[in-house]
Order: sequence, then C-alpha cells, then structure tokens
Amino acid sequence: MRIDSRRFLLTGGASMIGARTAELLLAAGAAEVLLYDNLSFDRPDAAIAALCATGRVRLVQGDVLDLPALTAACAGVDGIYALAGFMSAGIAKNPALGLDVNIRGLLHVLEACRQCGVGRLVFASSSAAYGYGAIGGGLTEAEPFHSAGVPAPPALYGASKVIGEQLCRLYAAQHGLDFVALRYSTVYGERQHYRSTNALYIIEAYDRVARGLPPILYGDGSETKDFVYVGDVARANVLAMEAPVSGEAINISGGRPLTVRFLAETVIAIAGATLAPEYRSAPTTGFRITADAPFYYDNTKARHLLGWSPEVAIEEGIARMIAWRRESVAAEGGAA
Amino acid sequence: MRIDSRRFLLTGGASMIGARTAELLLAAGAAEVLLYDNLSFDRPDAAIAALCATGRVRLVQGDVLDLPALTAACAGVDGIYALAGFMSAGIAKNPALGLDVNIRGLLHVLEACRQCGVGRLVFASSSAAYGYGAIGGGLTEAEPFHSAGVPAPPALYGASKVIGEQLCRLYAAQHGLDFVALRYSTVYGERQHYRSTNALYIIEAYDRVARGLPPILYGDGSETKDFVYVGDVARANVLAMEAPVSGEAINISGGRPLTVRFLAETVIAIAGATLAPEYRSAPTTGFRITADAPFYYDNTKARHLLGWSPEVAIEEGIARMIAWRRESVAAEGGAA
Repeated sequence: MRIDSRRFLLTGGASMIGARTAELLLAAGAAEVLLYDNLSFDRPDAAIAALCATGRVRLVQGDVLDLPALTAACAGVDGIYALAGFMSAGIAKNPALGLDVNIRGLLHVLEACRQCGVGRLVFASSSAAYGYGAIGGGLTEAEPFHSAGVPAPPALYGASKVIGEQLCRLYAAQHGLDFVALRYSTVYGERQHYRSTNALYIIEAYDRVARGLPPILYGDGSETKDFVYVGDVARANVLAMEAPVSGEAINISGGRPLTVRFLAETVIAIAGATLAPEYRSAPTTGFRITADAPFYYDNTKARHLLGWSPEVAIEEGIARMIAWRRESVAAEGGAA
Repeated sequence: MRIDSRRFLLTGGASMIGARTAELLLAAGAAEVLLYDNLSFDRPDAAIAALCATGRVRLVQGDVLDLPALTAACAGVDGIYALAGFMSAGIAKNPALGLDVNIRGLLHVLEACRQCGVGRLVFASSSAAYGYGAIGGGLTEAEPFHSAGVPAPPALYGASKVIGEQLCRLYAAQHGLDFVALRYSTVYGERQHYRSTNALYIIEAYDRVARGLPPILYGDGSETKDFVYVGDVARANVLAMEAPVSGEAINISGGRPLTVRFLAETVIAIAGATLAPEYRSAPTTGFRITADAPFYYDNTKARHLLGWSPEVAIEEGIARMIAWRRESVAAEGGAA
C-alpha cells in the first residue's frame, strides 16, 4: 500500500514507536495520521504536540478494548498499525488487563479492519515470540517459542504476541486480511519509557548515572541482548505498510548480541561519567529475562522482503536517547 | 492433597473427562464433587444423572466467565480441576469467546482459588502446548511451542494452553498457588464428542463405519497421533491432586505413535465391518493438524512424579468407545 495521500490509524499512537512512525508517515506524504491511544501509558508531550501542529495528525483518546469507539475512529482509514499493548512487567502487575489488551484488544483491531474495509495491518509483534531461556545464536523467524524455566511474566508477554500473530493469520484465512507482523527486538531511543524490562539496561542505567550512581548488572555482565533503535523501527513500519508482502512475520532487530556490560559502559562513556557498573548476584524484586547463550535475532528476512536493515549504531542511538533525556529533564526543570 | 472426605469442583465438569474424573474421586472417598459447567458443550446425560444419583455429586450450571458465580460455587472447596475450555475447531468458529474462556476463564479459576483459599489446582493443559508441524520423536516437557506453518486454529489453541500454564505459574509465584498442569494428548473414550479435531480419527471414523461408509484419511495414512484413554486421564487427574508435587507440567499420553491408518483399520475391525479406509489428498473444508515426522509425548515424568502410566491399550479403548456409542445410539432410538 502506498503512503502518499492515505489515512492511517495507530493504536498505542502516543507511544515512542507510534509518534516516530507518524513522523515518517507524514514525511512520506500521508494525508492524515490518527494516534489512537488511551493515554494510560504515554503523555501527550512536546513530540505529540509537534505532530498535531502539522494539522495532519490527530490524537484520538480511545481504548482498544472499546470496539465501537475503535471502529468509529477507523472509518475511512486505509492502513492500521496495531502498536497498543502491555509488556512483561505490566502483565505481571495486572495479568487480566494486560492479556485482555494484547489479545482482545488486537481482536478488536482485526474486527475494525474487517468492518471498516481497512486495506492493510502492520502488527507490532515482538522477539518475545521466541520466548527466552534455551535460545542462542542467530534466531530466524522459524524459531519456536521457548518458555521452560522462564519467569511467567515474559513468557505470558511472548505467548500473547504468538496469539496476536495467529489471530492475524486467522483473519487472513477467514476474511482475506492483508497484514505483516513485525517482531521488534528491544526498542530504545528518544521518548524511552520504563515499561520494557530489557530497555532498562539503557534508560535506567542512564538515569542512575545522571544521579551519580553506577548502573547495576546481575551476574558477570556477559549476558547479551539485541537492541534496535526507534527510528529504525519506525522506518521498518513504513516499509512494511508499503511492501507487496502479506501474512509474514519478520524480525526487526539490531541483529547482533550486545553484552549488558557493553551497554552499561557505553551509557557511562557517552554520559561523560567516570563510574563503573555495580555487579550483583540477583535482583531482590521483580524478575530477570535471561538467555542461556549469546543470541541475536537474524534480520535477513527484513532485508529481503522489506529492503530494511538497521542503520543507527548502538552508540549513536544511545547518544540520541541521552540527549533527549537531558532536554526533557531540563524542560521539566529537573537536573540532567 | 488427599481425596478422602474432601470437596472438589470441576469446571467443564459435565465433559467426558469431567464425569470420569468425578467417578474416580467418588471411588477414592471424596465427600462432594461439584460439576461446574455451562452445558453449552455437554448434555447432562445418563452418566451425569448416575453421578448425581449418588448424592455426592452436584451439577452446578455456571460459566467460568462469571467470576461471582464461580467464586460462590468454590466456597468450601478443597481442590479444583480446571477442565473447561475451547479446542481448535471451536476457536476457529469464535476466536473471541474461545480465547476468553481459555484465558480469562482460567484467570477466574485462579482468582477463585485465591479468594476462597482453595488448596490445590489441577489444570487441564494439552500436548498442543508443543504446537504442531516441526516435531518428531519423543517429546518431553522441555519441548518448545512450534507454530511455523501450522494452521491458525490449533496454534491458537496451543498458545492458549501455554498462557494457561504460565498464569498458573504467575499465581504460584505471586500467591503461593499449589498446582499441577497436565498436558493430555488426544483423549478418547466413552462420551466422546466431536470437538477434538484429532479424536475425529476414532469417533467420526466409527460413525461413518456404522453408516456403512469408509473412514476418510488424508495423504497415505502414515501420519501419526498420540492417543490416551479417558479412564487413564481420569486416573492421572486423581493422582495429580494427591501427589506431593507442585508447579510442574506433566505429559499424560499414550506414549507411542499410532498411524491414522492403524486407527481407521482398528475401528473398522472392532466394529466388525469389512470396509477399507478411503484416501483423499486434502480436505475441502476446515483444517488439518499435521506433524513433520512420527512423534509421541514422552510420559516418563508422569511415571516418576505421579506413579502414572497408561493402562488401557488402544484396541481396548476403541472397543469401549464403540460399545458406548452403540448403547447411546440405541437408547436414543437410532441405528447403531
């Protein structure tokens, strides 16, 4: 589907990924972009205000669990991005609501597509669809979902994304839905929130460094993660709406294993601090997401099907996130 | 937990597994067994009437989606069996309701356990928690969930069971819930229904043979399945309530690969017919559940943790199912 002159709706539109995607849709000539969001997680901050000031973006306060409101908002929409969802920590706190938003909320998006004749859906899946624990190496889209020995919250989050993808496939088979599921690895960048357990290795680390405290690592810091910059994700979203591809799940990832020690040291270096990470054996509260071996999510399929590769190096992405954090803290009158 | 003098509630209690489990709980000295069921799938037939006639079994018509009704029914209950659920074909027809029953319905059971201080839960999971497709050999409980290339309905069913198990684990971690998840392979036997896509290889095959029609097989009939007799499953349910084991997922299976050709030929032979199966290339409606290689679900863990092994051979189980079918058809005045 072309972007030029078309209308798009983004559930979870006020999120870091939503706002960045809206920006690129505008740049590609979209006629209108609706940010459908209940604002329970993200605030309509300066970034949202700037988007709305273009006259081509509207913030529609609504909930994906409210099917009539969602359907009403989808009238005349050409393409939808389903970005609304709970992550692991949120599901741990409220499993009933979290699973309802991720599963019934997505079913409502699918129903809205069907009822309103929306041409195409991009579903924000996750590399959590591979689970955690017994993984290692380069994971392709054929990898099954691993949950043995994994804490329940990330397993529930990942399984809810598996269900989301399968619901898209069910609607494709039964109603001819045209969709792509993008399995983002850990997304980070400007407007970073605290809801992503893995992204805390960057944002929480920086916020501690800004207060003169060392980032905390568990174990020896050799555990790895796969991070992808929010601007690269937004670009993948636009390409996924445009691509002549349907019914596929596609990794959108950094595509290399980064140790948590490297992440902490990079945050410290870019912040200009002279701290060393603090090593602890295990957290006293919450849960950890771990893997049994270094791993990354193979993004070859994204290159072949979407012409997408990550472009922003981790050091550059972290520098941008820190610059944004300092600006936003300064704007709020705090100390950066 | 001992069974003697205790009170139990079974969601989906009017089902083939529910009624059979109730029978064994009574035999083990249970004070009372409540069959909690909305009767949307199973009828209160002669088997249920016989149970209720003992004075120790009560049929409580209620829905797992009705939390207040479920909680009211759970007052004074010592142990719960969570047996209510939709299977693949039901989820294909009504994904919103099917996933709601399997996920939110189970959350309600967990909430009822917590609110009513129920001592122990046995959750009816499924070998569908391993998915389908790229599996083969003997599958242990560590096997991940496979969904690549699988039709959406069985993938959704399996993923809903993965979520069910993880919700049990979440309640164990957060509220100290004492539970066991039993991963039944395809259950068959007396009071067989048509909701289990794999069990159709027996019940639908027999019903065709009874009408003088050949059972239908797709492909060359060499595909395999793993079947477990309902009486063996009921015995596993009782042992799982009694066992000093918590937080485990355990395969309850026949433990050997049976070709669909063998199943059809066994049904024909035991029915005393002289038909041959009819081979077709692919079904014209619905979906098939297939695996890439012969497989079975390894039940070693059940032997070690529960002292359970399957006892009823497939030929004997099929003979019992056919005998029940002939009796029930005769009782309804039809032709057997």
